[in-house]
Amino acid sequence: MAKKKAPKKEAPKSDVELTKKDVYTLKQLVSMADSVVTAAGRVRDPKMDIPTRTLSNVRFNKTQRILEMGKNTTGRQLFNLNQAKSYMQTMLVGSGCKQLIEEGKSTSIRGLYYLLKHTIAGTKEETFSDQAESDPIIEDVEVLLNVLREELHLYAQKKGDMVGNIVLRDKGDEIDCSRMGSGGYGIPSIVEPDTIEFVKCDAKFVLHVEKGTVWQRFNEDKFWRKHNCILTHGGGQPSRGVRRLLARLNSELNLPIYCVLDNDPWGYYIYSVIKQGSINLAYESKRMAVPDAKFIGLRSIDYERCNLSPSVQITLNDSDRKRAKQIASYPWFEHKKTWQKEIQKMLDNGFKLEVEALISQGVSYVTEEYVPARLDERSWLD
Amino acid sequence: MAKKKAPKKEAPKSDVELTKKDVYTLKQLVSMADSVVTAAGRVRDPKMDIPTRTLSNVRFNKTQRILEMGKNTTGRQLFNLNQAKSYMQTMLVGSGCKQLIEEGKSTSIRGLYYLLKHTIAGTKEETFSDQAESDPIIEDVEVLLNVLREELHLYAQKKGDMVGNIVLRDKGDEIDCSRMGSGGYGIPSIVEPDTIEFVKCDAKFVLHVEKGTVWQRFNEDKFWRKHNCILTHGGGQPSRGVRRLLARLNSELNLPIYCVLDNDPWGYYIYSVIKQGSINLAYESKRMAVPDAKFIGLRSIDYERCNLSPSVQITLNDSDRKRAKQIASYPWFEHKKTWQKEIQKMLDNGFKLEVEALISQGVSYVTEEYVPARLDERSWLD
Repeated sequence: MAKKKAPKKEAPKSDVELTKKDVYTLKQLVSMADSVVTAAGRVRDPKMDIPTRTLSNVRFNKTQRILEMGKNTTGRQLFNLNQAKSYMQTMLVGSGCKQLIEEGKSTSIRGLYYLLKHTIAGTKEETFSDQAESDPIIEDVEVLLNVLREELHLYAQKKGDMVGNIVLRDKGDEIDCSRMGSGGYGIPSIVEPDTIEFVKCDAKFVLHVEKGTVWQRFNEDKFWRKHNCILTHGGGQPSRGVRRLLARLNSELNLPIYCVLDNDPWGYYIYSVIKQGSINLAYESKRMAVPDAKFIGLRSIDYERCNLSPSVQITLNDSDRKRAKQIASYPWFEHKKTWQKEIQKMLDNGFKLEVEALISQGVSYVTEEYVPARLDERSWLD
Repeated sequence: MAKKKAPKKEAPKSDVELTKKDVYTLKQLVSMADSVVTAAGRVRDPKMDIPTRTLSNVRFNKTQRILEMGKNTTGRQLFNLNQAKSYMQTMLVGSGCKQLIEEGKSTSIRGLYYLLKHTIAGTKEETFSDQAESDPIIEDVEVLLNVLREELHLYAQKKGDMVGNIVLRDKGDEIDCSRMGSGGYGIPSIVEPDTIEFVKCDAKFVLHVEKGTVWQRFNEDKFWRKHNCILTHGGGQPSRGVRRLLARLNSELNLPIYCVLDNDPWGYYIYSVIKQGSINLAYESKRMAVPDAKFIGLRSIDYERCNLSPSVQITLNDSDRKRAKQIASYPWFEHKKTWQKEIQKMLDNGFKLEVEALISQGVSYVTEEYVPARLDERSWLD
């Protein structure tokens, strides 16, 4: 077996069942290739108009409360020395994703990079010299075809876990998240309805916490059982899978999403990404953002409100201050007095607070007092 | 509720059911405190002899093939200006862990730091100025009392997922890892028999892969179903929970552990830690190491063996070369011709290879050809 030469590419399997979404995405990919033929037929230069993914082409839609891309596009031509390589790379990414969909398989963005990386016949030129070249092209294809990368059968590193009063079906397996012990259900990278169906949900809300260690505290105290909710964490900055899942739980099951994050610029930023999406990837906001998400804490007033000891303070550094000011100027925070006050108070405090700091009031203070009190009082920021 | 002052410490709950192990660990902790009283009774200075956790006090037991600590100890006295603080910190960590066990709760090592951090009454002195002070003290208490930190009710960040033909009970919930969809069961931090019981296992071996993205490929192809095994990943360097789980699957269920890691010094190191334990924490090897673990690949011969394209090579840098030589001199690799050859071949190649590089031979080459062929041929390093 070791000596047998492996086939360079697997033939598309005829037994692959394509979902409706797959069929749509394939059609989009094929139309991208067809544009070359069409241009050639008309004796025109093959060209794509790729929506511009820069801050200047992003705007905050105040009515829908999501980030949107503007209408600016950037041309990418085959017969232009500066653009020929990226034109070809765009087509390569398209053909790689087509192969994945036809084979009924998915891979990581790193996997796609390796799948497409080769030396062009008769030259010493490589299709991609490193992953930093293929990643932005994937984003280009996403915006060009208006599909999420998950629909192109690409996934990211897995992150985050879930427990709580919800039953879902994941690739045919029924998973009861109320019977997942201390480990929980590992949130997949791709949580599109094709893969993950919601079967039954008794939970009334979702509590999303920043870190796995805090999630373990809430799970150990069976917070989700006492308060009839779903408990998730994102292992820090949540992955696309976690964000998309929160968005689906919110939009399809009408569950409010409450966040418990650190009282620092990083915690604010995580909330901002969950709420509005990331500025770099504004085009995904429509399906990944949760504009209704609530920020329970930790709040800058919690140092006094919870009688915390001075020893839990972590002094702000210059980059914290700078970052805090940037976040305060985000369009969705800029005109909110509550958020301006929150961030200003942190700057005035001169220190940040981690969720773990609450433990100085007792191991289960955060699950038995802090969060229940905020929910009772309906005290949060949004 | 907001104004109610929370109690500083929760009273031990009388309804907490202590496990046998808890009772043992508590007894050990109490004996640590008793030593102060005994010393005082004898008009002696309170003193602890803490096993030394340095490389010079670590040896490789060739018969048992695990790392062991030597007999060197370091004295730590209360009435010694240089040691008084760490003496007091050791007692504090002991008392914090006692509190956790009595409350039937666990926390992260960061949580314990916050739990114990306070300003000493009447002074400006803090018990711990940062977590870098409390973490080594936790390790001291582990070696002093010969208990794992998990038995002290301390956990680490969660990492890694599992699927496959095994049913386990996690805090009373029965979890069938063959019905976990694309997400999998999130491996907990604490996987001691008190928490995780193995109920039923049909699997014949464990395949452990380095990264979540590679794990997703194997899970998508249902490798574990075709080959009747368990599939785990550690999200890079596996956490203690993942390592302890592999050790338990190996020692209690007699399952061989096969590893699929990158062909680079980091991949070698991960294998080394799974196999023998980490040098810094040699004392845990007895319960965390899997001396029988096999290294399937990627091997330095795989570039030729699998006909990989030159474009997947990643050139070694100086630090790779240095690290590779260090690893080659580990006592468990030092006298193994196979390992010396493996590492030398990588140095001769001048490049490293990631598992993802195999995708250039087809999306499922790694699951359908590479690993099955190695298992058929019984071709691995150990």
